[in-house]
Amino acid sequence: MAQASSPSAFRQLVRAGRFTAQTAGQCPGFTQGNLAIMPSAYADEFLRFARRNPKSCPVIGMSEPGDPSVPELGQDIDLRTDIPGYCVFRDGRMVEEVPHLRELWREDLVGFVIGCSLSFEEALLEGGVPVRHIEQGTTVPMYDTDRPNGAAGRFGGNGVVSMRPMSAAQAIRAIQITSRFPATHGAPVHFGDPAEIGIADIDRPDYGERAEIRPGEIPVFWACGVTPQQAIRSAGLPFAITHKPGHMLVTDVRNSHLAVL
Amino acid sequence: MAQASSPSAFRQLVRAGRFTAQTAGQCPGFTQGNLAIMPSAYADEFLRFARRNPKSCPVIGMSEPGDPSVPELGQDIDLRTDIPGYCVFRDGRMVEEVPHLRELWREDLVGFVIGCSLSFEEALLEGGVPVRHIEQGTTVPMYDTDRPNGAAGRFGGNGVVSMRPMSAAQAIRAIQITSRFPATHGAPVHFGDPAEIGIADIDRPDYGERAEIRPGEIPVFWACGVTPQQAIRSAGLPFAITHKPGHMLVTDVRNSHLAVL
Repeated sequence: MAQASSPSAFRQLVRAGRFTAQTAGQCPGFTQGNLAIMPSAYADEFLRFARRNPKSCPVIGMSEPGDPSVPELGQDIDLRTDIPGYCVFRDGRMVEEVPHLRELWREDLVGFVIGCSLSFEEALLEGGVPVRHIEQGTTVPMYDTDRPNGAAGRFGGNGVVSMRPMSAAQAIRAIQITSRFPATHGAPVHFGDPAEIGIADIDRPDYGERAEIRPGEIPVFWACGVTPQQAIRSAGLPFAITHKPGHMLVTDVRNSHLAVL
Repeated sequence: MAQASSPSAFRQLVRAGRFTAQTAGQCPGFTQGNLAIMPSAYADEFLRFARRNPKSCPVIGMSEPGDPSVPELGQDIDLRTDIPGYCVFRDGRMVEEVPHLRELWREDLVGFVIGCSLSFEEALLEGGVPVRHIEQGTTVPMYDTDRPNGAAGRFGGNGVVSMRPMSAAQAIRAIQITSRFPATHGAPVHFGDPAEIGIADIDRPDYGERAEIRPGEIPVFWACGVTPQQAIRSAGLPFAITHKPGHMLVTDVRNSHLAVL
């Protein structure tokens, strides 16, 4: 895949169809975001859902109806073309993957960009906390929980978490580091016993791939950006679009600028 | 026991022999300190030991040789009289408890005041994290570990930890809260499996009293101010004085002023 020197240059590559892969590792230091696009008729309700669930749905950008730009995250962003892959949902079911939205875009669509864990994983690695799924070269394991989201209108369902195994000392450091990043899921929501949050088998994630838990390690759970996708699914929206998993919007916002401390 | 309206008024009570009990709960909001007094010949070495072990030995005040005042912690502090009980050590062994040091004080003595966990426990309670031994009305359970302190000259030995049981969610919050207080032991050093730090039986603390661990709770371990006392013991100092356990120096420094964030 082609390489880019800046987020703007990277988005140009994506827009030209020259980058179609997962975005992990692209433009290190810059925030990547999950995408959720829906008709404006549902947007206010979704924003209320996000506000009630800030750990899983931290909205870092939002577009105006029909306008695919998000200048707060980058002057030239075009939500129709700048993500390397999209999933199209109809009546709550994913029906197709598309490389761009040039034909699907509508004048009533609103886009939400939601903070993602790639930002804090970079901070963990810088802080000396290893991240197993990065070591393994796999996708982070994610799990449906039995913890209900805060509901807003038709959006509800249960929370989804991602899991990273580590030692207790590393977990203490990881809690400190990720607490600095409330806009990208913040501190963990749980650690230890998976059953306590309704996870039956830690070795069988609902999304992503298994991460090895070594002796002396504890599973540490963070709120996950799959939560809003699940909410869109369970709400049965007639039409919605998300990014293809792992294929994020790369923004001009530095991770360090999202840190609160 | 008599009550006082300010740390200075409280120290006057202690100085007059009208307060001789444990100091927990006295002058809420103000920092209390552990005390270690030794001949100046050992003070530099002890300070190097403290610097190497800042989580267990956070020095918040230090006196000049022969001078029992510590103006940085309170203009009128007199280390000879302002602590409600003292332990006298000779050749590394505790030989007597005394109510004041008027007869024992020497021109070569140096006093160290070391941050104590009462400060962060107040912050935990304010933050909605219950503290079991306070609920129980008992002394916090403390344990010798197999983790060696950083050594400096004759001071070494293994670290001592205190333990507070709580849920995972409370532990995450407690890590955030206590991270703000590096001068009073800071973030935990471990949680979960006691054996990992050399604790054989969590229900039999080496100091203090057992704290009940309820289903779903995890033991969380902090570096403990007993560590410097252990170092004094193991170094076999010919002469040293500490506060009597639980009988602290109440300072004019507000806990909130020790917080780094």
